[in-house]
Amino acid sequence: MYGVILAGGSGTRFWPTSREQSPKQLQKIIGTGTMLQNTVQRLLPLISIENLYLATNHQQAVETLRQLDSYGFFPDHLIAEPCNRNTALAIGLMAKVIIDKDPNAVMAVFPADHVVANSENFIKTLQKAETLAQKNYLVTLGIPPTRPETGFGYLQQGDEIEDGAYQVERFVEKPDQLKAEQYLEHGKYFWNCGVFIWRASTILEELQNYAENIYSQLDAIAGCIQNAKGNSDYLELNGTGRGLFSSLPSLSIDYAVMENSSRVALIPADIGWNDVGAWSSLDEVTEKDSQGNIISGNVLAQDCINSTIQGQSRLIAVLGLKNTVVVDSPDALLVCAKERSQDVKKLVESLNEKGHPEGKQPATVNKPWGSYTVLDAGPSYVLKRIEVLPGEALSLQSHQHRSEHWTIVSGSAEVVRSKETFQLETNESITIPKNTKHRLGNPGSDLLIIIEIQFGHLLDEADISRYEDRYGRC
Amino acid sequence: MYGVILAGGSGTRFWPTSREQSPKQLQKIIGTGTMLQNTVQRLLPLISIENLYLATNHQQAVETLRQLDSYGFFPDHLIAEPCNRNTALAIGLMAKVIIDKDPNAVMAVFPADHVVANSENFIKTLQKAETLAQKNYLVTLGIPPTRPETGFGYLQQGDEIEDGAYQVERFVEKPDQLKAEQYLEHGKYFWNCGVFIWRASTILEELQNYAENIYSQLDAIAGCIQNAKGNSDYLELNGTGRGLFSSLPSLSIDYAVMENSSRVALIPADIGWNDVGAWSSLDEVTEKDSQGNIISGNVLAQDCINSTIQGQSRLIAVLGLKNTVVVDSPDALLVCAKERSQDVKKLVESLNEKGHPEGKQPATVNKPWGSYTVLDAGPSYVLKRIEVLPGEALSLQSHQHRSEHWTIVSGSAEVVRSKETFQLETNESITIPKNTKHRLGNPGSDLLIIIEIQFGHLLDEADISRYEDRYGRC
Repeated sequence: MYGVILAGGSGTRFWPTSREQSPKQLQKIIGTGTMLQNTVQRLLPLISIENLYLATNHQQAVETLRQLDSYGFFPDHLIAEPCNRNTALAIGLMAKVIIDKDPNAVMAVFPADHVVANSENFIKTLQKAETLAQKNYLVTLGIPPTRPETGFGYLQQGDEIEDGAYQVERFVEKPDQLKAEQYLEHGKYFWNCGVFIWRASTILEELQNYAENIYSQLDAIAGCIQNAKGNSDYLELNGTGRGLFSSLPSLSIDYAVMENSSRVALIPADIGWNDVGAWSSLDEVTEKDSQGNIISGNVLAQDCINSTIQGQSRLIAVLGLKNTVVVDSPDALLVCAKERSQDVKKLVESLNEKGHPEGKQPATVNKPWGSYTVLDAGPSYVLKRIEVLPGEALSLQSHQHRSEHWTIVSGSAEVVRSKETFQLETNESITIPKNTKHRLGNPGSDLLIIIEIQFGHLLDEADISRYEDRYGRC
Repeated sequence: MYGVILAGGSGTRFWPTSREQSPKQLQKIIGTGTMLQNTVQRLLPLISIENLYLATNHQQAVETLRQLDSYGFFPDHLIAEPCNRNTALAIGLMAKVIIDKDPNAVMAVFPADHVVANSENFIKTLQKAETLAQKNYLVTLGIPPTRPETGFGYLQQGDEIEDGAYQVERFVEKPDQLKAEQYLEHGKYFWNCGVFIWRASTILEELQNYAENIYSQLDAIAGCIQNAKGNSDYLELNGTGRGLFSSLPSLSIDYAVMENSSRVALIPADIGWNDVGAWSSLDEVTEKDSQGNIISGNVLAQDCINSTIQGQSRLIAVLGLKNTVVVDSPDALLVCAKERSQDVKKLVESLNEKGHPEGKQPATVNKPWGSYTVLDAGPSYVLKRIEVLPGEALSLQSHQHRSEHWTIVSGSAEVVRSKETFQLETNESITIPKNTKHRLGNPGSDLLIIIEIQFGHLLDEADISRYEDRYGRC
């Protein structure tokens, strides 16, 4: 079986832990790994790593590969989409890529940021789904509802196909409260959890039947796949492909195919699934203390009940809270009534409208070469911690309005300054005057950490002239 | 009239804004200045700055003087106490200092961290109190209670002395809820607000009558007053004086004198007084928005009611909070049910017990020469922003285990390194190797700001050898 992970989440509902530029699937929300790592880990008993594919966007590609490096994930199994066009196009393109390798492939599609508590049942259910998929069904997993949820779509169970597998009577859009209560009581409605299992050939046929405008471009787009610029080995689209991709409609696979096809099958799946759609969802998937609290980080809590306190290294002291969510991050803090967790999404929209960069950008900004974190700023200086991954290097660049002072605090650096090249070790410093070409690289095998003091009267990330760049950013 | 401000608050109830090492009176809690500055400002219409005295502790002396500099406060009118021995001793010593200058002096005593909304009535009341004090009364201001408060002592009004001034029938310790309700209804009970007006000679006589053990040492202690070491001009006690001071009992003036003396007079004072004793007190003294919220700093609030959100530059987003207090600081955050505000004091005790330095020490640590703030730290480095006041200098020092990299980002510095002296301007850097004598000074008239990167495998404030110090810290 082939696996396709769709990792295109926007990450607004777990703000400030997740941001548009560091979405939920790349964060540790519960468990030991990031949501994405947990998703991969869960699949490995059934799907070998060489059969695993992933679609995400350009911004997350490098960080996504970094997180999957230890699993042996194949970098060229990651396709970086030029923009978000929802699941129909992403799935269609992946089906095309997979069928080119294996015409009989059964592929399973998984969101990157859900939780499955019962891995054993999950694997068994997928195995059952595979046999149905081989009979050319479009198989969906249906989660038995545990509450009258209005935030999910539902699948209505139809006639039995075989033991434990059913036709789908109909797909139901997110219901109102009354209908959700009826569905819960009725017993033959299931949550649509976004996991699908089918032959690549079957889904392509059904795309052709029901989404001809998308289907008709898949060959052309697949022909535009190329290696990403620079020394990261993921795949992306060339200019023609980006144009084609962007011109297609943004449709979900449910809307484009599943609601129309007569080949849809449903397997009820009691697998402890949770979409972890908001901070309040942690209550369902995380162990709580005797007072119903979920607490992590540097926190002192007194007399709190049913509250979620997610700290980091900064001290948080909480007193007498009830049903409250407190989530800290280096540059932004959320305090929210738990019952309002779903509205964090709207809160982030407000932040974006008001121009708060914290709505989209995390304190630590990932770059193809590593990351930087702004630690302090004054009228004429900005202070950053810069981390450069082993073997990586920033572009050869210069700045018109600022000089930079670098001090190595961990690892070793290769610094190009004008026509000279220096090897710098920990506890060594160098100054880069303005208008001087320079490059910072990490030739070692350990992480390089430097403290950078930018000094000037105009300090702006945009004040950069790039002369050479491994990542195609010139 | 002479004024004595008692500025020895411990600052636990306004944590994390106030800390043991940066107490409430030195913070901007409400209004434009710090609590101390507001207190001085309020007195100036009646008490000229040359008649104003202040008692605080050693740790706060320099910062206190800095805050009062713009008022022309006389540095040698500040006495830095070696330890806290409550109000009886502080008042006795101040009375001794003042009577030595003016045997007929009337002195008024004020806490440094209260609010008086009606300054005009306050001044009128003090003027009336002065005439009574001249008749050798110990005058107290009694605040008409507005609620059955159990956190204050009460004064029971006795016979009229003259229009608007009364004997005190008795002093009442903090009552229970039932008694507090009775006092409120009774109408002749007033809150004891800690403002006293008397002749220096009268309070000294009454100390002799009722607190002989304290009184008997006042002359000796006053004889031990000396200029503080270094070029700060406040007063402190020499070694003998410190020993005498510390050996005396810690008694409040209420307990030591007021509850015993028959010369106590009460002036009911409708002056908009508030002790601002907890975060919830802000509700009584600060303007609220239409939803009852008090919000400051970089805050986005949605659907909050009766909540207090005190942010700084870091973004705080709050959603759906009711009766909640959120107070942010660079290194610690408080989130608390407003009704539990009084228990923040206990919360800070817990922090101290558990060894959290944030309970006592603020992110920005005041020093006689300025301040420092830790911005970041790793296994082998600590990053600080250091601010040196004009004309000040750190000690000549060396470190056994760390080197230091300094970059000037504002102002100019004089740096001694081994046998050389350098003048450094903004955008210049210097490295101080370990075991090298060095000194950082600010010879200019502007604030000096440097970024310091300490590097070493043992990074500890205690790793310092001082060779010369203006502030007597060798």
